[in-house]
This record gives sequence, C-alpha cells and structure tokens, in this order.
Amino acid sequence: MKFEKISELTTCRLSVYLRCLNELAKDNITTVSSETMAKRYHLNSAQIRKDLAYFGEFGVRGVGYSVEGLRNHLMKILGTDKKQIVAVIGAGRLGTALADYHGFTQSNFEVIALFDSDKNLIGQIKGGTEVFDIKDFAEIAERDNIELAVIAVPAEFAQDVLNRVTKAGIKAVLNFAPISLCVADDVKLKTVDVTTALESLSYFLSQNSHTEIELRKAA
Amino acid sequence: MKFEKISELTTCRLSVYLRCLNELAKDNITTVSSETMAKRYHLNSAQIRKDLAYFGEFGVRGVGYSVEGLRNHLMKILGTDKKQIVAVIGAGRLGTALADYHGFTQSNFEVIALFDSDKNLIGQIKGGTEVFDIKDFAEIAERDNIELAVIAVPAEFAQDVLNRVTKAGIKAVLNFAPISLCVADDVKLKTVDVTTALESLSYFLSQNSHTEIELRKAA
Repeated sequence: MKFEKISELTTCRLSVYLRCLNELAKDNITTVSSETMAKRYHLNSAQIRKDLAYFGEFGVRGVGYSVEGLRNHLMKILGTDKKQIVAVIGAGRLGTALADYHGFTQSNFEVIALFDSDKNLIGQIKGGTEVFDIKDFAEIAERDNIELAVIAVPAEFAQDVLNRVTKAGIKAVLNFAPISLCVADDVKLKTVDVTTALESLSYFLSQNSHTEIELRKAA
Repeated sequence: MKFEKISELTTCRLSVYLRCLNELAKDNITTVSSETMAKRYHLNSAQIRKDLAYFGEFGVRGVGYSVEGLRNHLMKILGTDKKQIVAVIGAGRLGTALADYHGFTQSNFEVIALFDSDKNLIGQIKGGTEVFDIKDFAEIAERDNIELAVIAVPAEFAQDVLNRVTKAGIKAVLNFAPISLCVADDVKLKTVDVTTALESLSYFLSQNSHTEIELRKAA
C-alpha cells in the first residue's frame, strides 16, 4: 500500500468519501460506482476516481467499488482503523459539546478526558466525561495514551494550552480558539475558526447587497 | 473602494488580519507595519501587503498601517461594520454553545434565536437565547431580519433544515452537520466539518507512525 504524502485537501476528500461509504454500508449497499456516489452525495465523479486511483486500483470497470473493501482501505489510510484517544481542553460549553460529539465516536475517536483550570469544574462529569486539572495533563496523557488534543479555551489562553500539550508529547492538535497559534514543525495543528467562517459568509452577503445596489443604479 | 470578487482564502485572511488589528487596538497601538503584524501573529508579511494592496493603498512607507483606519476598512469589506442577525438551528449542546459564542458578538453578529423541532426545548431559554419552533422559521426570519443561519442539527436532518431556511430567503448558511449538502447557486454555504478536521489529523499521525516504522526498518 502506498502511503505517500497527500495534500490536506485530498485527506479531507477521503474523509468525506469514507463518510459516504459508511452511509452506503448502513443501507446494505455492497458496490457503488463513482458516478452513483457523486450523484448521491453531490461530489465530482472524476475527482473521486482520481483521488482513489492514487492509492491503487480499487474499482472494477462497469461494476464499481466494493463498499466494504474501499471503506476498510480508507480507514487504514486515514488511520481511523484503530481507536484514537482524544482529550478536550476547556470544559466550557463548546468543550463539553465537543466531548459529547457523536461524529467522534463514529470515526473511532474516543474522548476520554476534559481538562480545565477552573477549580469549580475539576472533578465534575461534563458531556459524559470527567474534568481533570490541566496541570495534570502530561501525567494523564501518558497514562491513557492520549494522541490528539482539542483546544476549546478562550483565545488568550490557547497558546499556553498548546505549549503544555505539545510539551507532553501530543503531535496533533485541533484548535477552536479564534487565534493564530505558533507550533513546532513536527506538530500538526488544525484550526477550526468559526468567526472567520461567519465573516466570509458576511463578505458574501455584503458583496450581494453591493451588486444589488449597482444593478439598481444601472437600471 | 473596490469590491471585486476575491477568493474565499483571501476573505479568510482578511478576517484574521481584522482580528489581529482588534487586538492591536485593544493594546492602544495606533500604527503597525506588515512586518510587525506578521511577526506578532505568525503571518506572512509579503502576503499581508499583497492582500491589502488589492483594496487600495493603506500603508505609509516606513510608518505602516493606521490600525484604526485599516480596521474600519476591513470591517467594511467583510460587511461586519453593521450588525448581522443570526439564527442557530438545533438547540442541542453544539447549537447552544454556538448561540452563546463570544466570537460572534465580537464580530458584530447577533444570535437572536435558536430553533428546534423538539417540543421539550421550544420556549426554553438556552445559551441566553429563546428556542423557537422550526416551523415558525420563515415568519420569525422575516420579522427579525435574520440574514445568516447556522445549522447544528444531526446529519440526517441537515438537508431539510437547509431547504427550509433557504426557502425563507436566507442567503448565507454555516453548516456544522457532518454531511455534504445541496444548495442553490445564489446561496452561500460553508461547512465546518469537525470530523474531517480530526481525520486529517489522524492521517498525519498515521503517516508519522508509518515513517517511524520505515525509519526503524532502514536503521
């Protein structure tokens, strides 16, 4: 099996394909063509073929892909064929929502701990998960084999938290704090920036209203 | 002022610059060079100059940008100089966390309503916001000038919700459901996909462990 470096965009598409295949498997569908998959999930069939061909030949011409075979293969590529242990830092509303997020379990991620510095939260059960003192992160991460950290703290604390988790050996971090963080080269940091997503929608809306004004002027 | 179409990536960078400028303004800094901004926020100074030059000349050579002037300008470009009314659909944990999200207020977004179909939730106050019946969406959207909808419902309900809000005239939607949705060309849909983000981190981790194995083999 090839495990060459692929771009993050490709990885994201593979993740989407895997989700589609999970749904097809749930519906007891055993084979699927790239065309059917594209149509059903609003994807591009040529792109599907190109992305999958990169990892070897899976499809049978005129028959399509084996749903189960391709699923297993994609899980291996994405590393979700084995359970991965996740910690969420920040036991506020967002952190708690993330600890309880179904999408994680579906993809073989298990959130086993929440961390916070707030004495009132430490020791409580939030979103089905115990809240630990952030000071004990390194110890618990080692004990419980935490591989991924999710940062859900206010922006001003995010860099400190990131430093702490990477110092404890965490190599992959998903950040929800609306701030650009600095990280060593051997750590993969991904930021999910809700405000930026909303602002780019806002830009779209403001563009539209400008266009409307100009059209009215031109009329 | 130019309002040409810019790419979504550029929009996202402008949003990040705006956040940096907001912080600089908080620290009473009145002028900033692209180099200082790049250094302080881990950005690329040439990219900053290029992005901003696209909208006209803001900087003064050797002095830098006026923090306040550039801030106002970016807010105008992004459409966040005026308040925008947001509704969150799905009053579960994630929806409630989003309704209460500080980043929204900071960017002039106001979440004025949560919507759900669960009779036990309708009428309650969640995350500081009232929960309304999703059936009344069109009526309330018109009455309260809702411009943006945030979808935070399980994947299987997301397309129905999207259809309902766009039918009510909403042109910009932020989707948190882990599913690819189908939307008309005149509506802007942005999906924040937490599972895909985690799976791309998982891919990175599995790549690393493969590399380690190969290095060990080679040693």
